[in-house]
This record gives sequence, C-alpha cells and structure tokens, in this order.
Amino acid sequence: MDIKPIVSIVMGSTSDLPVMKEAAEFLKSVQLPFELQALSAHRVPEDVLRFAKGAAERGVKVIIAGAGGAAHLPGVIAAMTPLPVIGVPIKSSISIDGWDSVLSILQMPAGIPVATVALNGAKNAAILALQILALGDASLMEKMCAFKKDLANKVLKANEELKSVQI
Amino acid sequence: MDIKPIVSIVMGSTSDLPVMKEAAEFLKSVQLPFELQALSAHRVPEDVLRFAKGAAERGVKVIIAGAGGAAHLPGVIAAMTPLPVIGVPIKSSISIDGWDSVLSILQMPAGIPVATVALNGAKNAAILALQILALGDASLMEKMCAFKKDLANKVLKANEELKSVQI
Amino acid sequence: MDIKPIVSIVMGSTSDLPVMKEAAEFLKSVQLPFELQALSAHRVPEDVLRFAKGAAERGVKVIIAGAGGAAHLPGVIAAMTPLPVIGVPIKSSISIDGWDSVLSILQMPAGIPVATVALNGAKNAAILALQILALGDASLMEKMCAFKKDLANKVLKANEELKSVQI
Amino acid sequence: MDIKPIVSIVMGSTSDLPVMKEAAEFLKSVQLPFELQALSAHRVPEDVLRFAKGAAERGVKVIIAGAGGAAHLPGVIAAMTPLPVIGVPIKSSISIDGWDSVLSILQMPAGIPVATVALNGAKNAAILALQILALGDASLMEKMCAFKKDLANKVLKANEELKSVQI
Amino acid sequence: MDIKPIVSIVMGSTSDLPVMKEAAEFLKSVQLPFELQALSAHRVPEDVLRFAKGAAERGVKVIIAGAGGAAHLPGVIAAMTPLPVIGVPIKSSISIDGWDSVLSILQMPAGIPVATVALNGAKNAAILALQILALGDASLMEKMCAFKKDLANKVLKANEELKSVQI
Amino acid sequence: MDIKPIVSIVMGSTSDLPVMKEAAEFLKSVQLPFELQALSAHRVPEDVLRFAKGAAERGVKVIIAGAGGAAHLPGVIAAMTPLPVIGVPIKSSISIDGWDSVLSILQMPAGIPVATVALNGAKNAAILALQILALGDASLMEKMCAFKKDLANKVLKANEELKSVQI
Amino acid sequence: MDIKPIVSIVMGSTSDLPVMKEAAEFLKSVQLPFELQALSAHRVPEDVLRFAKGAAERGVKVIIAGAGGAAHLPGVIAAMTPLPVIGVPIKSSISIDGWDSVLSILQMPAGIPVATVALNGAKNAAILALQILALGDASLMEKMCAFKKDLANKVLKANEELKSVQI
Amino acid sequence: MDIKPIVSIVMGSTSDLPVMKEAAEFLKSVQLPFELQALSAHRVPEDVLRFAKGAAERGVKVIIAGAGGAAHLPGVIAAMTPLPVIGVPIKSSISIDGWDSVLSILQMPAGIPVATVALNGAKNAAILALQILALGDASLMEKMCAFKKDLANKVLKANEELKSVQI
Repeated sequence: MDIKPIVSIVMGSTSDLPVMKEAAEFLKSVQLPFELQALSAHRVPEDVLRFAKGAAERGVKVIIAGAGGAAHLPGVIAAMTPLPVIGVPIKSSISIDGWDSVLSILQMPAGIPVATVALNGAKNAAILALQILALGDASLMEKMCAFKKDLANKVLKANEELKSVQI
Repeated sequence: MDIKPIVSIVMGSTSDLPVMKEAAEFLKSVQLPFELQALSAHRVPEDVLRFAKGAAERGVKVIIAGAGGAAHLPGVIAAMTPLPVIGVPIKSSISIDGWDSVLSILQMPAGIPVATVALNGAKNAAILALQILALGDASLMEKMCAFKKDLANKVLKANEELKSVQI
Repeated sequence: MDIKPIVSIVMGSTSDLPVMKEAAEFLKSVQLPFELQALSAHRVPEDVLRFAKGAAERGVKVIIAGAGGAAHLPGVIAAMTPLPVIGVPIKSSISIDGWDSVLSILQMPAGIPVATVALNGAKNAAILALQILALGDASLMEKMCAFKKDLANKVLKANEELKSVQI
Repeated sequence: MDIKPIVSIVMGSTSDLPVMKEAAEFLKSVQLPFELQALSAHRVPEDVLRFAKGAAERGVKVIIAGAGGAAHLPGVIAAMTPLPVIGVPIKSSISIDGWDSVLSILQMPAGIPVATVALNGAKNAAILALQILALGDASLMEKMCAFKKDLANKVLKANEELKSVQI
Repeated sequence: MDIKPIVSIVMGSTSDLPVMKEAAEFLKSVQLPFELQALSAHRVPEDVLRFAKGAAERGVKVIIAGAGGAAHLPGVIAAMTPLPVIGVPIKSSISIDGWDSVLSILQMPAGIPVATVALNGAKNAAILALQILALGDASLMEKMCAFKKDLANKVLKANEELKSVQI
Repeated sequence: MDIKPIVSIVMGSTSDLPVMKEAAEFLKSVQLPFELQALSAHRVPEDVLRFAKGAAERGVKVIIAGAGGAAHLPGVIAAMTPLPVIGVPIKSSISIDGWDSVLSILQMPAGIPVATVALNGAKNAAILALQILALGDASLMEKMCAFKKDLANKVLKANEELKSVQI
Repeated sequence: MDIKPIVSIVMGSTSDLPVMKEAAEFLKSVQLPFELQALSAHRVPEDVLRFAKGAAERGVKVIIAGAGGAAHLPGVIAAMTPLPVIGVPIKSSISIDGWDSVLSILQMPAGIPVATVALNGAKNAAILALQILALGDASLMEKMCAFKKDLANKVLKANEELKSVQI
Repeated sequence: MDIKPIVSIVMGSTSDLPVMKEAAEFLKSVQLPFELQALSAHRVPEDVLRFAKGAAERGVKVIIAGAGGAAHLPGVIAAMTPLPVIGVPIKSSISIDGWDSVLSILQMPAGIPVATVALNGAKNAAILALQILALGDASLMEKMCAFKKDLANKVLKANEELKSVQI
C-alpha cells in the first residue's frame, strides 16, 4: 500500500488477524487505501497514544479497531482522536464467549462513542467505513450502492439453488 | 427546524423520546440541522421503507435510530439505505434488562452494518454523527475538537471539587 | 410441490437450511403442501415486503420464518401480514450462543406477535403449524393425534431398550 | 361469559392476573369468547391433566398459558392436548429477571411446541390467538386487519404529537 | 436388580443416559437398590403421573430426575409425590449452554421444592440420595463416611503425583 | 426452642434473616425442632468447621444454609459433614442479580452435593427438610401430605375468587 | 492528607465517589496515607498517562481504580505502571447490571493483570491494599490481623442478637 | 525447589494443572521460589485450614489459588490468612462457560477480598504476585520493568511481521 491510507485498521493482537483481515479484504475490493497494524492498548500504550493523536493529521479519516477480552483498544483510541472509530469485538481465546469483548467496546461513557459492530464483524466495520466516506465522495457512494445490489443478487441466486433442494 | 435536516433521528415508539431527545439536544447544541420522528418497523413498515429509501435523496446524511426489545428499526432501515445508520439500543419497559435491544441491533449479518452505541446512548449517537459529518466539514471538525476539550475541562473541574470532599 | 402451498417456510439465509429443512420434512410427512425459500430481511427487504403482503392472497395460511443473529425476518414479516407467523431462532455462526437469535425474535412489541419456538426448533414450528391448521380440518387433527400417540410409543420402546442397559 | 369459550386463558398463579388480564381484555374487545382460570402445574397437577385433556372436547380451540419462574404450565398442557398452546413467560417476584420464565417455556423438546411470546406479552398472546382463529373465520380476519390498521394509525397520530415537542 | 428399588432414577430422554448412568453407577457401588427409566414429562405425561403417584407405595424413598432444555420432569414429579425429588439439569443438544435446564429445574415455586444439583451432576444426585437415606440407616451412614474419607485420600494421592511434575 | 434441634438453619450474614426466617416459620408450623444462627464461611471459618463437624453428633439431621454473593457457606459445610445440606441462594445487596449466589451454591464438584433450591427459596428448603425427615417418620409424612393437600386447596379457592374478576 | 500518599484511589467519574469513598474510609481508619482523584481514561487520557507513569516515582505503592460501564481505567493504568493495580467494577447508571464493568476490568490480556474485586467492592480493594503493604510492614500486618479478629467478633455479636429473634 | 517458597500456588483439583502451571512457569522464569499443590476446599477442608493458617509462618507471602465451578478455594483460604490471595477462575469441564468460576471467586463479601484475575488467567496471577513482591525488593522491580519492556517489544516485532501479510 503506497498510497496514503484513509482507513486505518488496528487490532489488539496479531492473533486477531484472521478476523480483522476481512475488513482489509473488503477495503481492498473497493480500492479504499488502508493500513493494517497491531497496537495493544495494554502492551504499547504510548504507541497507541501517538497513533491516535496523529491519525487525523496523517490523512486517516476512519479508524477500525478490533480487540477481544477486556477490549480497551477502540475506546482508548476514540478518547484521543476526533475521528469516528469503529469497534470490532473479537471472540478470542481469552474471551468469555465474546460477552467481555462486546461490552468493553459497546458500553462507552457519554462523550466518547465507539461505533460498534457485531462480534467478529470486521467486514461490516469496513462496509460502515465505506458508507461514512461515501458521504463525501460520489464514486464511493456508487460502489456502496453496487455492493448493496450485489448482496440482493446473491440472495436471489441462492434462492434459485434452494428450489432444487430435495426434501 | 426549517433548514433541510442532515441528521434524521427516528425511534421505534414515542415512549423512547426521553432517551432519544438527548441526541436531538446535542445536535441542536452544535447547530446540526435534524428531524425527529417515530417510525415503528412493526407498526408502519411501509412508512419505514419509504423513509429509508428516500432519506439520501432528501439530503439526509446520517440516520440515528433508537428502539427497544426486539429492536428491528435500525437494521431494517440500514437494509434500505446506503447511508450510515447509528443504532441506539433502548432499555424500554418491554426489554429484558436491555439485552434484547442490544443484541437485536448489534448482531447484524455481514453486509448490513449498524453502528451501535451503548444502551440508552443517544447522546453518543449524536456525537458519532458529528464525527462522521466533520470529516467533510472543517467547521464541524472544530466543533468536535472543542467538544472534546470541554469534556476534559469538566473532568478537571470535577476533580477540583473532589479535593474538598471530606473522608 | 405442485399443489398450492398452505405453509410457507422462509429463512434468512441458505446457510439456515440444515435447521429449517426439519420443518419441511415434517410437513411433507403429514402431506401439508409447503414452499421453501430464502428471504433476507436485510439483503432483499422489498422482496420480503412483497412476500409478506401477498402471502394470504396466495393461499398461504401459516408462515414459518427462521433466522439467526439479529434475527429480524420473522418480526418484519409479522408486521406485514395478518397471518400467524412462527419464528425459529437459529444458532448460526454469527450468533452469540443463540441468545441474539432468541431475543430478536421473541421480544416483539405489543401488537405484532411472533409465535417463537425453541432455538433451532424448526420441527416444532412445523408441528405448531399442523396444530393451527388442524383446528379447521378434521383429517389434519387426526394426523396430529396420531403424531402424539407415536411420540409416546417411541418413549415406551426406548424405555424397553433401557432395561437391558448394563450398569 | 355465558357463550362457550373458544380461547382458554390459564395462569400458574392468581398473582399473574395483572399480566394475564391484558389477554382477556383484548379477546373481549374483539368479542372472542374466553374463559380465565388459575391452574398450577405444581399445586393441582391432576386438575391440569383434566383441563388439558378435556379442552378440545369442550370446544376450546386455543389455549393461552402464562407462568413465571420454573414455568412448566404451558409445556405440561401442550403435552396433553393437540390444540395449539401459546405460552406467556411472566416476570414474577420469584423470577430471575424473567430468564427462567422465558427459557422454561421456550425451550420445549421436539414434538411438543409451545408458541412463546415476549416476557409479560399477554396481549400479543391474545392477538396470536385471534390470528390463528381468523384462518377459519372471515369476520375474525376482518377484525385482525382492522386491528393492524388501527396500530398504524396510532403511530401516525403519535408522530404528529412528536412534531410539537420542543427540543 | 431383583430387590425392590429404594431410589428411582428417571430421565427425560434416553439420550440423557450417558449423564444419568453415573447416578446408577454410584448407587450400585454402595449397594443401594435402584431402578432406571426414561419418562418424558411431555411425551408420556400420564405415565409420569402414574409413576409419581405410585412411587412411595412401591417402596421408593428418593427420586432422582434428570432432564435438559425446558426441563419439566423433576418439577412435575415433585408436584405429585411427597417424596424428596433430586433434579439433575442436563446440558443436552437442545439446551442453550445448560441455562434452560438449570433454571427450569431450580426455580420451582414455593411449596414444591426440587433438590437441584450441578449441571450434569448425576453422581452428586446419587450421593445426596445416599446422604438422605443414611439418616435412617447406620450402615449407609458408614458407607457415606467411608466415601468422604476416600475422597480426601484421592486428593492426597493426586497431590503426591503433583510433586513430581516438572515445571 | 428447648428441644434438641433436628434441623439447623444457618445463614452467611444476619442480613439474610428476612429470607431465611421463612424456613424457620415453616419448620415451626410443622413442629420440627430447629436452631437458627449466622455463620460466615469467610468471617468465622473455624466456627463453621466446628459447627459442621459437630452437627451430626448433636442430633442435627438436615442442615439448611443460605448465603448471597460468592456464597460458599453451604458448600463449605457440605464438605465437612455426611448430613444432607440444603442450599438457599440469596439475592443480597452484594449480589449480581442473584446469579453469583445461585452458581456458587449449585455448581459443587463431584463428591460434595448441595441440594440447591430457588433463589430466596428458604421456605422450599424447609419443605425439602420435612420431606427428607418424613422418610423415617410416619407422622411427619402425614404432615407433608396434609401440606400438599392444603396447597391444592388454596389454588382452588383462589380460582373461585378469580371467577368474580371483572374483565 | 499532608503525608505523601502510599495508596492512590482514582475513579472514572466523580459520580463513582459514593462507592469509592468506602476505600478511602477504610484506608483512613488504618492510617494509610492515600490520595483521591477522578481520572477518566476516555476524557483526559493524557492525564491518565502522566498519572500512571509518575505514580511509582511519587512514592505510590498501590493503585485502586474504580470505573463503570466500559471500564477501561484500571486496565489502562495497569498498562503503564509496574505497580499492582486493584480494579473496582462499579454498577453505575450507564452499566448493564454491572456485567460490563466486571468484564471490562477482569478480562485483561496476559501480561497486564488487574487485581479485580467484587462489584462495588471498594472497601475490599482497600483491605487488599493493606494486605499487600503489610507484607513489608509489621505494624500494618498487626492492623490487618486485628481487622480480621474484629470481623469475627462482629459475627459473634450479631449471632447473639439473632438468638433473641422471635420466629 | 529447595529454597523456601515465597509464593504458594494451590489448585482445587489436579485437573486444573494445565492452566495453573502457567503461573509456575512465570514464577520460575523470574526466579521467585514457589510451591505447587492441589488442595480441594471441599475434599480436604481441614488441610486447607492448616495450609491457610500456616502459610504466613512458613514464609509464604502471596497465595495464588485456582478453582473451577463453585470455586470456593480462593475465598476459603482468604478467610483464614492475612496474606493477599490471588484467585484464578478456571473454565473446567464442570463449569457453565466459566461464569460460575468467575462469580464464586470475584463476588467475595466485604472484609475478605480475593484479587481476581481473568478466566484461566494463571500467568497474570503470577505477574501480579511479582508486582506485589517487587514493592519491597528492588531487584524484583527491575525484573517487572524488564518484563513490561519485553512485552512491548514482542508487539513491535509482531507488527513487523504483520507488514508482510498479503491481503
């Protein structure tokens, strides 16, 4: 990725990559320049600070942050940037069925929202980023509309296949 | 509100107003033009369809949708618009401690994200809307930064008061 | 199935088929004409609208709708038809242990009931459809009574086998 | 109620009456003849047996059963009648936030469905009964359609009032 | 087992046998005569009634009842016998992580207790039966005390082995 | 109470008295001699040890132990006596909606059962004690049967009153 | 407090004071010098960084941090200090019955422990601080032992009062 | 281990060893002398008493106790020693998804804290022990600071690897 990233994908641990790369793949498919890195709120807190405070200046517009367990990364970043932060709760090996990840990201106090998506919903986080960026970019809006149409078509095709299922 | 609304606040029932008006109040405080209405996904489904499909054309850029119990409104709207939809789970009288509202809004399937905020977190929904819109509007970005600075100041002031607490 | 369907089985995604076909199999076993299709409340919302509004006219009497995660399909259909809608919560891969599916279907607001059955309980949904239709059809009532007798017999037979278990 | 009841409303305890009478009130409003009684699956098990086995013969077509805590009444009745049984989980004083009531009614084993509605959703149980009975009675179907239209109108009226809310 | 059973083990389904046979094995190990059968509260309700009402007369003194999902069997039996009933919640395939089984058995209303043990805790149910019967039988009390001593010895032996673990 | 107690009621804290005295009241109503004391597993662990080890010798036959939060008292006592221990989970002020109390008492490991009753179910604990003691005492068995008959009569009477309810 | 604080009590919001002052009161009662301040991980993140990094140097030995909802404060501080951090989950108005607070504090990833106490358990946090500091200070250890003896005495006294309770 | 142990690791059952040995491994890596044993609060209660009361005298300074299900071991030990006790909830085979273990350890009553770490978080328990002991030992504090630096380095290295991931 040589172009300046507009979306920054960060994750609490490299073990979150299998989930978070779905966000990267979607962004790539719509040619939205992104960057990808691991940034633990607990292991390298000062790097997180530097990252969060510098993101807007570097041209990043939307941050997607995924984390599991006591998932502080999205909230900690949201505290230090005026940019919209999208949180992806991850059902990691340390998580109690995902409940800890969901609640640690969703239940932010008044003043510092994190736009939370479904457990392991990294792809939806990327789609949401596209929706946000499409507000100011007609060609992105076209991509978003095309994506929605494609979604409907897939259901219709799947339904065709269903007709041949033998009960 | 005579100016064309940029943010549309909808709620599943007028009984959600005490929670949802916090969103309206924040938007008003930053002079973001908004509209406010009740739109039950279950009681007036066709109105919801019409609303969702027409929103972008009317100039709306962000939709904030609050609902309680089996809270389908945010997801149903998200299904029919390319605009970003922010969902506010509401702990209404019909809700099981808020868990139904949270899960019905958060756990959207791949393809149709809803940017979910905390239970009853209508104010955070409005702040998130501001963050999204500020990406394309420098004066809104200034308001967002001012808001964050104000937040910090309130904590500092509160802390001053704490010093005089007698243990 | 050439005969006009009386029961319509819909599911949120073709990945729900392994669960939902149990409903189809039961209906087939009691010769109740049915149709089977995938209809995502979020991916093809207008098709859902068309389906729900047209069902009664096409002669459908009972709708069985299964979905997982933020499972809106049963409730969205129930909003647009006077027919009884039976909801099947599905523990899909996107679900948090099934809780989201259960609560999104069960906790409908006053005015729009969904007759919810157990998690993955598609067979029970079909039995419930038979019970409902049997109210106006003596031969179906006989089938229902025969089914219940058969159920008891299976327990008795199983119990016989239990006697030979060596502890 | 002198006319032979078509819907039978039973509850596990007279303390469930404040919730369950909403079912009775709805049925009364649409002139569906009903009966109302307390029948504890645990305190008078043989009366429950007699009730369940005799209901169909007495002309009852739909049974609505509400109970709280370890709520066995709906399932126990469903075990002994071919009629559709609608279960209303009740958040009684003995209940753990309603979870026990919901799970004891919803999670019935294969073969014996209970059509479960929302926690304390007695009104929805009655509406579901109307939907079921309307399948074989055009005048009831008209009432059902009128009810749905009325529901929509109430939302529209409420929305009108919302417009005058001062933010 | 030719001797008249003193403990009766019943289970909601033969699929519960892998869990429930641990109760049988313990009772066998302490020579307490028992019987073992499947008795579904929902599939053969009248057999359950007959069983529960006749148990005391047949010489049964303690009933151990296991069931999963909406687990009504222990409570339904407890309603129809003055004998102590021990309930074993089972995490069956239909269960939501065992919560439904636990709550349907534990949360009995005032007047009809079920002595509930841990999820899948069939062995503990048998030990509890021994404790109850030992109150009136000195030789059983000796067996109970021997069992407790044996338990402690096993821990001591295990601890010895632990010492040789290489960290 | 001058007579030697047969049932011993213990509670983790005197603040549990409002719940636990229901056990005492029931035992008094059936003339079962009992004692009542507070014994914190955490605050006076050695007194608990002394109590548990000495109970059988003092003639106690059944122990009822209530506690809230991390409710260790019933399990700790069960570890040190061969007598049956009945556990009453209490929804105290320190409890998370009662879940901690329920799980800390119910989920005992293999070898040391606690007969758990419903949250705050102290009366049921006392009834269970009566059921256990009635196995070896015909006059107690008569009292137990009378109690069950009385329970049924109360339901019948309540039902009579229900008939006069005006819907 | 003029003496240099050894324990630092921080809370996410001044609204947490009613809970957190119990920690202060206990520390005062054992003459352990402490400081008390509000420090929001989300509203003044850089102050938190400064506080956490400077605490050890200022002579603080134990940090007690309380927070509610998505409670990041204890974990964020723990990330930036080698000192032991004790976390107090708070059931604040924004919390979902306390579950979010508990899980956000407890479920820290490997490498950065937070010593978590019970929901609203600020007093226990202070006792734990005393236990930790008593390891290197004989007079504090005496205070700790005296405290435990006092605890036992209170139970004994309460038990005396219980004896006069009239059942 | 010939040197007198400063940290004592106990577990409720030898089946907890796979989790608990992570604590031992960490302590070994920082040369903190420790001992390791199984001590069931329920199976050998008097050994637990002896252990807890004697620990301080034997020179133990911190106790790490792990247990699953109704996990009483950490709390029971904390009741009988003035030393800090760190509790490790274990998701054992008898546990309901770990919730019982977490709540039985965390929710201790006022007066007897247990410093609880994450589910299966034995390594964090050992790190916490190091943090506590480092307060009075400069060389341990150096090790603690080195550990934290190492943690950060691992993240940086992992991040390097991430850069070569092909999306």
